[in-house]
Amino acid sequence: MDNGLFTANNVWMMICTGLVFFMHLGFSFLEIGLTRSKNTVNILFKNVFIITIGLLLYALCGFNMMYPGFEEGSSGFFGFAGWGIAAPENGMTPDYADGGYTWWTDFLFQGMFAATAATIVSGAVAERVKLSSFMIFTILYVGIVYPIAGSWKWGGGFLDMMETPFYDFAGSTLVHSVGGWAAVVAVALLGPRIGKYGTDGSVKPIPGHSLPFAAAGVLILWLGWFGFNGGSVLSADPELTSLTLVTTCLAAAAGGVGAFVFDLILYKKYDLTMFLNGILAGLVGITAGADQMSPMDAIIIGVIAGVLVVLAVGFVDKLKLDDPVGAIAVHLICGIWGTLAVGIFGALAGMDQFISQLIGVAAYAVFCLVTAFVILYALKATLGLRVSKEEEIEGLDLHEHGMTAYGDFSTK
Amino acid sequence: MDNGLFTANNVWMMICTGLVFFMHLGFSFLEIGLTRSKNTVNILFKNVFIITIGLLLYALCGFNMMYPGFEEGSSGFFGFAGWGIAAPENGMTPDYADGGYTWWTDFLFQGMFAATAATIVSGAVAERVKLSSFMIFTILYVGIVYPIAGSWKWGGGFLDMMETPFYDFAGSTLVHSVGGWAAVVAVALLGPRIGKYGTDGSVKPIPGHSLPFAAAGVLILWLGWFGFNGGSVLSADPELTSLTLVTTCLAAAAGGVGAFVFDLILYKKYDLTMFLNGILAGLVGITAGADQMSPMDAIIIGVIAGVLVVLAVGFVDKLKLDDPVGAIAVHLICGIWGTLAVGIFGALAGMDQFISQLIGVAAYAVFCLVTAFVILYALKATLGLRVSKEEEIEGLDLHEHGMTAYGDFSTK
Amino acid sequence: MDNGLFTANNVWMMICTGLVFFMHLGFSFLEIGLTRSKNTVNILFKNVFIITIGLLLYALCGFNMMYPGFEEGSSGFFGFAGWGIAAPENGMTPDYADGGYTWWTDFLFQGMFAATAATIVSGAVAERVKLSSFMIFTILYVGIVYPIAGSWKWGGGFLDMMETPFYDFAGSTLVHSVGGWAAVVAVALLGPRIGKYGTDGSVKPIPGHSLPFAAAGVLILWLGWFGFNGGSVLSADPELTSLTLVTTCLAAAAGGVGAFVFDLILYKKYDLTMFLNGILAGLVGITAGADQMSPMDAIIIGVIAGVLVVLAVGFVDKLKLDDPVGAIAVHLICGIWGTLAVGIFGALAGMDQFISQLIGVAAYAVFCLVTAFVILYALKATLGLRVSKEEEIEGLDLHEHGMTAYGDFSTK
Repeated sequence: MDNGLFTANNVWMMICTGLVFFMHLGFSFLEIGLTRSKNTVNILFKNVFIITIGLLLYALCGFNMMYPGFEEGSSGFFGFAGWGIAAPENGMTPDYADGGYTWWTDFLFQGMFAATAATIVSGAVAERVKLSSFMIFTILYVGIVYPIAGSWKWGGGFLDMMETPFYDFAGSTLVHSVGGWAAVVAVALLGPRIGKYGTDGSVKPIPGHSLPFAAAGVLILWLGWFGFNGGSVLSADPELTSLTLVTTCLAAAAGGVGAFVFDLILYKKYDLTMFLNGILAGLVGITAGADQMSPMDAIIIGVIAGVLVVLAVGFVDKLKLDDPVGAIAVHLICGIWGTLAVGIFGALAGMDQFISQLIGVAAYAVFCLVTAFVILYALKATLGLRVSKEEEIEGLDLHEHGMTAYGDFSTK
Repeated sequence: MDNGLFTANNVWMMICTGLVFFMHLGFSFLEIGLTRSKNTVNILFKNVFIITIGLLLYALCGFNMMYPGFEEGSSGFFGFAGWGIAAPENGMTPDYADGGYTWWTDFLFQGMFAATAATIVSGAVAERVKLSSFMIFTILYVGIVYPIAGSWKWGGGFLDMMETPFYDFAGSTLVHSVGGWAAVVAVALLGPRIGKYGTDGSVKPIPGHSLPFAAAGVLILWLGWFGFNGGSVLSADPELTSLTLVTTCLAAAAGGVGAFVFDLILYKKYDLTMFLNGILAGLVGITAGADQMSPMDAIIIGVIAGVLVVLAVGFVDKLKLDDPVGAIAVHLICGIWGTLAVGIFGALAGMDQFISQLIGVAAYAVFCLVTAFVILYALKATLGLRVSKEEEIEGLDLHEHGMTAYGDFSTK
Repeated sequence: MDNGLFTANNVWMMICTGLVFFMHLGFSFLEIGLTRSKNTVNILFKNVFIITIGLLLYALCGFNMMYPGFEEGSSGFFGFAGWGIAAPENGMTPDYADGGYTWWTDFLFQGMFAATAATIVSGAVAERVKLSSFMIFTILYVGIVYPIAGSWKWGGGFLDMMETPFYDFAGSTLVHSVGGWAAVVAVALLGPRIGKYGTDGSVKPIPGHSLPFAAAGVLILWLGWFGFNGGSVLSADPELTSLTLVTTCLAAAAGGVGAFVFDLILYKKYDLTMFLNGILAGLVGITAGADQMSPMDAIIIGVIAGVLVVLAVGFVDKLKLDDPVGAIAVHLICGIWGTLAVGIFGALAGMDQFISQLIGVAAYAVFCLVTAFVILYALKATLGLRVSKEEEIEGLDLHEHGMTAYGDFSTK
């Protein structure tokens, strides 16, 4: 491979790394925007913690657990290539990874992904989770559970070894559902925020405190998805990367329009929050097969994701699972949808692939539900998962952090 | 062409695509920042609608209407290459577009531009336009008017066929004036916001609710212009792209400094809003000839744009055209200025070119004024363009969306 | 060099230029976030002024003062290649700068750096500095002091001519300390904000008005550092750029975690502001040697920077130097630390190098303290450096700009 191509590939992958990093600002903005101002410092703290500790853990053990280099004959369930990170002999040459990037770029790009799973949980448990317990959960889930789960497919593990390999291009399942399943467990164990559900079964909306931050968060996440999906090509291959960006953007647009129109029909209201969630739904939905779809496939997948998210938000509330930012609807439900869609639409569509996709979804469901439950139940039984009633009412900012997010402003 | 160069070109164009996408966050921030908090959800909704529907329409018909491939002997006024998008045989090879990018990248880059024209109008009509009418206008203007107008020059139409072809590098006219002319029509048909002009002819400023969002919007737009102008080279040609970034940044800087100093002389005040508008004025002004100017040309064009925007904001108010964000002054007046400047400064300067530029400006003026008037007048006569007085006073957020942007904060 | 490689290099450098530009939004957000709402317009104005005037001055004289092309036998203290900017004969070919970028990109990348030094000072003097005096200071410091200081090393001056040349990869000293030293002088001459220090020696915290802006600022700065450090490779060399991004991100993460854990031990509080400052501390600390360190080196440098910033914030307050955003602790103390660390860790470690680093630190200390003092003292003696007591209490926004940042909100 000539040096110009290798360099161009690596430039693209470094940019994508930066864009995935930037998604953490998107997630932060979205989560604070959709919650109350009294918990804003706490949410920002959690998100900054996730990205920093996530990178350090990925250097310590995550990368080598996710890409262990399964040997011939391995069952492909678990492997570990050792502590720390050290570049292989050829890691800086075009011999590594078909010249798609250097080993350093590989580590950093994958490291930026790792933290995302915990961020998804962060949104679901907002406004009542105990900070120290959440931090311990993050360390275990990002440092161990996510990399093991990732190794099953992206690390060449058993889901990649199947005759018709499970397919998940950029992580509808490996990232979004992995976060989503843990969110379900966490929300179930935590219980709803005070005042969310009436004793008569009614649902009381708790509006967010800054729609501008929420909207900015979604637009930043969309931009970040240029890197999340575009970088998952693992090189700057002109055809694949540009197709991926087209399907990604069309699915996002279709998801947003689908959700707001469906919501308008159901509730006769132009709901900005649902529009925003629809965009994310489309993005999560296209992620598993962004490189396999035609533009029309992408639009259909997006529209269905947009409709699904509207239904799912209602359904999750019916189950009395209080998820302040709609993380379960967006990341879990649309993550599953996107994963299955690979068997229905696009270049890989077919019954064998669909069954493989089902197997993959089920495998991650079991693993994530079990591991998240073990971790979170143990925390609940020891440190406790939830802040005191007084703290929840007065706000986590004051109690956990001794400060408020908006010192100068009068709040209601 | 070697694969490394083709890949590097395409990487640059994909990044520029992402940056132009990001401008929609810039426009959103700027528009909410300069208006009142009670209309914030509405403005965000409009902007998210514009980018999503804009991309879908561009896939449905816009791209093929803007680049119809005018045949020999065509008059170059209108062409249509068919519904939907489908890559040509060679669309993913260096044979397409001189290896500057793939056909997918081409579509997406141009699609990101398309929505911009409607965004400009959005700012001018803020705080009183009826959402449903604005949405219909957006669909027609982005889906049909903008692509036809674009085909006249960028699609190889009649303005490109002239002996001395009209020149508009990145859209001072094709994007900014196209939006600006519609803004004039819309504002004239809508009338001013309640309380903006006293019965004695006085002008009452209606301050925006968040200068941080306004400033962030402008800085994000400036960054986005790296892609807007830098990508308009249509490859990563090192000399042209880097010259373009230099002229773009110097014009932005000169526009900002020019506007604030001129404003300081006139009004003895350090006016942040005018500083910000001056930066945008410089950016719009350089856009038509960013690849043709020397650094000194760029600075002069920027300073003049900065002075113009100060005068224009006052002049527009004199006409009782209530334009909350100064869109007409920035995008129309400086768009015309930038277009004419191509005939005065830089590599193309000359009387023939100047006349071509005048012809182009006039052609777009007529087409946009007429089409915008037909669409908006029809909407006014049927659905109505404006919300009720009660809704305007209480805020569009409550009436159109049933929510407020800042639930927790006490407002005046 | 083949054209593909040259183009890929230049693409990377243009992107890095954009990212460094974007840091100005990061600095703006951080500075307004950590100060009071009544001074927000003023801070935004200063920051927008810095980036615009900075670029213009760099075109006028800065670039040619920083890269004068010292001749054989020059003492390497001062050189000037003339007013304005004009590309050399080979400036657009791979012959220039080993094909790392074009001369235009060179100018713009370095121009984006130039303004940063003044931005650092801006944070330290916030909430009481007189706008006109600060603007004059900015013009002199960015236009003259920074480029001369920069020429000593990056321009090939005397610190680069030493037998064991002083090493500062991306500016722990040349940018951050240069700003930091001026901040010390400015804060000392200005005095603390009213109410900051009690007559009994107590320190009264003045909380910022928007932690979301502060956190967003830091995340944007982190992203910007991809360009600040990644671009300082001066090409897209795959190994060096990707190593640099890895060390940069790990140091940032380690700095944040180090600071928050150390702060937690000292004060039993999860302090978001300190977490954020720790991230910046890690970034500033790694900057001098980001291309020379292993991942483990980077983590150690980051953790130490994180601990240092916690101690330094307290120490600066003990000296009654009122620095609202912690600029001295972050940029000066950690800038010195990072510069010295090059002699302790990584590929260059050794006593000779350590001594060279000490010489460099000392040279910049003397030059910056003296020049900043001369400029600021002259301003204090003539125009005055500080606003009136009344203006400080009522806010600079109202008095200097005649507007408020958040027109609609009720403030305390």
